[in-house]
Amino acid sequence: VNESTAFNELRERLAEITDLATIGELLGWDQQTHMPPRGSAVRAEQMATIGKVIHDLQIDDELGRLFDELRTYEESVDSDSLEASLIRVGRRDYEKARRVPSELEEELARTCSISEHAWVDARARSDFYSFLPHLEKVVELKKRYVDCFPDVDEPYDALLDDFEPGMRTAEARAALEQLKEGVVPIVARAAEANAGDDYRARYPGVYPVDSQRLLVEEIITTFGYDPESWRIDLTAHPFAARGGTQDIRLTTRFHVEDLSSVFSTMHECGHGLYEHGIDPALERTPLCNGVSMSLHESQSRMFENVIGRSLPFWQHFFPRTKELFPEPLANVQVEDFYRAVNEVRPSLIRIEADEVTYNLHIILRFELEQDILEGRVALRDLPEIWNERMKSYLGVDVPDDAHGVLQDVHWSGGGFGYFPTYSLGNLVAAQLWERLAGDIPDVNDQIAAGEFRAITDWLREHVWRHGRKYTPVETLRRAVGGSLDAKPYLRYLEAKVATLAPTG
Amino acid sequence: VNESTAFNELRERLAEITDLATIGELLGWDQQTHMPPRGSAVRAEQMATIGKVIHDLQIDDELGRLFDELRTYEESVDSDSLEASLIRVGRRDYEKARRVPSELEEELARTCSISEHAWVDARARSDFYSFLPHLEKVVELKKRYVDCFPDVDEPYDALLDDFEPGMRTAEARAALEQLKEGVVPIVARAAEANAGDDYRARYPGVYPVDSQRLLVEEIITTFGYDPESWRIDLTAHPFAARGGTQDIRLTTRFHVEDLSSVFSTMHECGHGLYEHGIDPALERTPLCNGVSMSLHESQSRMFENVIGRSLPFWQHFFPRTKELFPEPLANVQVEDFYRAVNEVRPSLIRIEADEVTYNLHIILRFELEQDILEGRVALRDLPEIWNERMKSYLGVDVPDDAHGVLQDVHWSGGGFGYFPTYSLGNLVAAQLWERLAGDIPDVNDQIAAGEFRAITDWLREHVWRHGRKYTPVETLRRAVGGSLDAKPYLRYLEAKVATLAPTG
Repeated sequence: VNESTAFNELRERLAEITDLATIGELLGWDQQTHMPPRGSAVRAEQMATIGKVIHDLQIDDELGRLFDELRTYEESVDSDSLEASLIRVGRRDYEKARRVPSELEEELARTCSISEHAWVDARARSDFYSFLPHLEKVVELKKRYVDCFPDVDEPYDALLDDFEPGMRTAEARAALEQLKEGVVPIVARAAEANAGDDYRARYPGVYPVDSQRLLVEEIITTFGYDPESWRIDLTAHPFAARGGTQDIRLTTRFHVEDLSSVFSTMHECGHGLYEHGIDPALERTPLCNGVSMSLHESQSRMFENVIGRSLPFWQHFFPRTKELFPEPLANVQVEDFYRAVNEVRPSLIRIEADEVTYNLHIILRFELEQDILEGRVALRDLPEIWNERMKSYLGVDVPDDAHGVLQDVHWSGGGFGYFPTYSLGNLVAAQLWERLAGDIPDVNDQIAAGEFRAITDWLREHVWRHGRKYTPVETLRRAVGGSLDAKPYLRYLEAKVATLAPTG
Repeated sequence: VNESTAFNELRERLAEITDLATIGELLGWDQQTHMPPRGSAVRAEQMATIGKVIHDLQIDDELGRLFDELRTYEESVDSDSLEASLIRVGRRDYEKARRVPSELEEELARTCSISEHAWVDARARSDFYSFLPHLEKVVELKKRYVDCFPDVDEPYDALLDDFEPGMRTAEARAALEQLKEGVVPIVARAAEANAGDDYRARYPGVYPVDSQRLLVEEIITTFGYDPESWRIDLTAHPFAARGGTQDIRLTTRFHVEDLSSVFSTMHECGHGLYEHGIDPALERTPLCNGVSMSLHESQSRMFENVIGRSLPFWQHFFPRTKELFPEPLANVQVEDFYRAVNEVRPSLIRIEADEVTYNLHIILRFELEQDILEGRVALRDLPEIWNERMKSYLGVDVPDDAHGVLQDVHWSGGGFGYFPTYSLGNLVAAQLWERLAGDIPDVNDQIAAGEFRAITDWLREHVWRHGRKYTPVETLRRAVGGSLDAKPYLRYLEAKVATLAPTG
């Protein structure tokens, strides 16, 4: 009886923290989609307030007392049960939150907020040195943050853990080294094979926004989008957010000169499907979330790339696409369109990179972040080092910092440790897909028929429903029977690039 | 130094409470405008959580200690200063919140939430008796709530105070009795004078939604609407909300068969102008809000009725209206349109009532609420009593409870004490308008020219900017030099009704 009272109290406290965190996520969504521009100053304060209230509840001594009190109970129930999982994951979150002094949390939040504004200005003027003092402060505070976690193998572990809980840098490094070795020759071969024009140059014209909206909604509806539980809004930088498993919010943006909205919306839909597919029994618990950024990115990249840039996918959707965009696409064959949307071409900007070269952008950042943290690189030398490595990895010349070291928001906001999860997501997507395709032998025929139910059922059963019940490693192990591995992704890339040689 | 530390701590705590309350308001806005339908169950829990967190912060002993500590400081500064006002108003809020036990607050919130759902069902089936047990529970809890405030003249005072802080029932009763006496003969005369057809029957046709949207935006833009700080969305039951003085959110709905959207949007715009016009120095304090419901309704009704149903207003906007809706309005004269949108006609449904008979709907509810609270009316007899009084006050026969006692959501949600503020808002609007028209002698010419700047400047100076700095009584006194009075409103109604006799 005592244990059940303690468990109910724990559950209630964690439910409140989860509610407030979700409310914060909805406020962020509102800010990026609907808030009138002049609302931003007060909104920043509101976000800080809700962050403070959450942190106060997260580090409450009473929570620690409950976790202690519930140890015997936790061991007495099945470790896969909701009860044991809630105690186990809740305790990990609690212990991690307690490691960081509230003053440091607040200083980080304030500094990063100011630094993000400075970055916006600096990027607009392509002026790294006006941003440098802010970056220095952020890095200094991140080092103090790292110091809160003495039981790591190397400093970067503490940063990676914020996005990929439990993963050590050595593991990520091994996988990304393997990826780098494999990708460099693929990039070289693909660059030779491609036709030399980019997709927009190949099919120029007007792609009316209303037709894009129709196409995008038709596609994601076949994936599982349903207005009873989802919505989609416009924003400058697309993202997915949610107010619960039955309140999934995608965002997108339409460029009238191309169909990039289709791919970016499939990407966000993958994130949304993951959150929507979590077991409803986990609602209002800290388990009701994707388990890590790499698992999350594996889902977005699977729907954007593995499925959404496949030939069977376009065999199904290209006739409708031509119907909607007759002017630019009337005389285009599906095979040519498929090659166009898969073209490999080294470029300057990460978020515009193709599926293959994208990984080199990530590896460059992952290596640089470790160099910065370990003091092997001085911040003031970043532009020069950035440009050298871009030349060496991708063969491109960086014209200015806006198209170089200043292109991403992450560092200004303190998001060191985030970048590697993008490429890890590619690896995980391929691992899951090999397993899924083993279980669904006619998966390509299903895609070519516009049928995604078996795919989403498989993903829900093997990944989505678990939420954060298991660690990321354990979640992957349960789904694919092994651990992180770059080989399936390299096999996938090899196979795809082989199909890209121009016909005729 | 000590005092300034204590004041800063008070200010910070009140800022956090204000932030969370505003976040709750934004969540409510989201729920009514954007949330996917299946998000509602989790959203209800999130709303309960934020309500609980706010209440816990509001009744924190530490706040009481600060208010005690700051008494000398409060007396040492100008009572009109931000500092003195913040302490004075904050203390009143604190003392009021402390009166109600948290258990009662939570039971009220839970019971009212269930009761609102029951009301939706009951209204749909026009079945009062399925709702009765819920209403009984709500009334029982409201009586316990009233008991928390022993220092009132009569029980209803405690309910009225939630919407009209500091007003006693006796004062509201005196004003509404005066109103009732004056309105009954006006209704009788107007009913004789009007043409016998209602507005929709007179100008039937299709009013395309896109054109309505254009017209509405053109009108409210002349009032001060500006997309930098405002937005407007669709909803089932229009309301106004805000995330700060620079983040004002109107909602509206369009009916293709009439122009009711124009009036309902002007109404919500009046609410929005009030919140937008609060002194920005009050942002993130409990002073940053309209001072009472009657003052708020005075603004919405001024823009909807005093301005928006005036002849000069339509002299300006009718040509454009005809341009946008040529099919139904091509052959209509502005004077006839003016008469149509002002037609007085007793009817069943409060929210569809005209400006004059509306008050009798309110007076009926105000009297009934007191009868219920004092035990003069048994809840099970409500339908019968409702129908009798509707016949006696408005001469209409109520066909069923959906069109009678079940028509409003207020009682199901525990909102006893709210109704009278609607009519009090009418009185205050007329009091302010007489004063404003005295200061701006050519106000009708300005309206006829589509110029509203002098009007909004006057209202900002005399009402809006103060927020909750002064009591509602003091706010009104500063603006009009007197107290609540029905005579200006009765003069206004007399004058308007005199213009409604049909020509030709």
